[in-house]
Amino acid sequence: MQTLTEQIVTVVRTCGQVMLDARRDDSMIDEKSGHANFVTTYDKKIQTMLQNQLLSILPDAAFVGEEEDIHASIRHGHAFIVDPIDGTTNFIKDYRASCVSVGLTRDGEPWIGVVYNPYLDEMYTAEQGHGAFLNGRPIHVSDKPLSQGIIMFGTSPYYEDLHQKAFELAFHYFKQAMDLRRSGSAAIDICSVAAGRTELFFELKLSPWDYAAAALICQEAGGKVTTIDGEPFTLDQPCSILATNGIS
Amino acid sequence: MQTLTEQIVTVVRTCGQVMLDARRDDSMIDEKSGHANFVTTYDKKIQTMLQNQLLSILPDAAFVGEEEDIHASIRHGHAFIVDPIDGTTNFIKDYRASCVSVGLTRDGEPWIGVVYNPYLDEMYTAEQGHGAFLNGRPIHVSDKPLSQGIIMFGTSPYYEDLHQKAFELAFHYFKQAMDLRRSGSAAIDICSVAAGRTELFFELKLSPWDYAAAALICQEAGGKVTTIDGEPFTLDQPCSILATNGIS
Repeated sequence: MQTLTEQIVTVVRTCGQVMLDARRDDSMIDEKSGHANFVTTYDKKIQTMLQNQLLSILPDAAFVGEEEDIHASIRHGHAFIVDPIDGTTNFIKDYRASCVSVGLTRDGEPWIGVVYNPYLDEMYTAEQGHGAFLNGRPIHVSDKPLSQGIIMFGTSPYYEDLHQKAFELAFHYFKQAMDLRRSGSAAIDICSVAAGRTELFFELKLSPWDYAAAALICQEAGGKVTTIDGEPFTLDQPCSILATNGIS
Repeated sequence: MQTLTEQIVTVVRTCGQVMLDARRDDSMIDEKSGHANFVTTYDKKIQTMLQNQLLSILPDAAFVGEEEDIHASIRHGHAFIVDPIDGTTNFIKDYRASCVSVGLTRDGEPWIGVVYNPYLDEMYTAEQGHGAFLNGRPIHVSDKPLSQGIIMFGTSPYYEDLHQKAFELAFHYFKQAMDLRRSGSAAIDICSVAAGRTELFFELKLSPWDYAAAALICQEAGGKVTTIDGEPFTLDQPCSILATNGIS
């Protein structure tokens, strides 16, 4: 008998294979809803796969996906909060840093998180209170201070009014650290903090499907995830995210 | 009978496997020669492998490596210019974006370039006048303008006096593009431009082993590689690098 996490992992791995097998051309871009904000036919295809297969595992759960307009309430019972492809611009460009992200909440609180980067075949999992894992092995955040660390940031590309502040803050953290990275996938970045590969990630505005799974994974790996102001992050509306190893 | 490029590819692939098999702990850090400038036992091990195996292929060639003090002259005859691990900080942190880079010059001019990212199993190759390839398939730079493009940059982490200028220039290019990335490996970034995944890369100061191979790969893929001021890059001393698809 598979655990619930294992069942979700099986679904998510299948979706990752769809990303790897994708035929990449301009016709796969379905629509553009803002600055650098794309949806591809693969986002939609994977979202449908996730919806069908996750709801067959847990039929009473609500389903909140990136690629739809109406978002279900997540306050009571179970809710899947999914991003079929986190890092869609990377996916379009074949810049190989994208992932499938599935968070499962219980009465509004994070319960299970699964993030899969098919390009590196890296499956991150966590269940509330039971630690975090990368391909089945326990992971823990880094014990290094920021001065020996790498910081990562998101540019909030869809929100032009936040661009300058994002760069100023990135430079501020960079000056305290060894160096800086930007992958273009918030979920992968937050999982990098969880795995102890980097020490800090921030982005000034993200949507719940970007961090619902990864934030739990980072917390279960011993990390700290809040808004940029140190407040609790929200799963029913967008917010800023600061994920650290708790030392930095 | 293997071509010279194929022989170099065989050597470089073996070195990539050493990176994948590395046992990662603090004791592998051998020395620190400046801000965020590390050398690991693996840099040295791979450099020795490259030196022995490349010089057995082409015994009369000079050998210029990152991990040594005395640099041979490259002006006459053949010279290998190698970086055993480009992206050493990533390698130390297990942030999986590093590569082995081997450039071969003839009378001071780029002749063959091989860059291998073992984490994605991506082998980039080029021979002067014969095009560029990724895992044996021809590659070409993107036909997209910067407004539909991704820019990448290096922070020149070892040169603190360049940090602010690097961020200002990154923001300048970012505002013209869709978004920005930073991987921490100049060779991988320049090859990303070559593969048409991104449109522009710059870094204000790099050493020849960082770009000797990748610059040729990018040029053979139809890209343009110069200093940031549009001058020819130098293989006998450090310089800035601007690699684009020629449209941006």
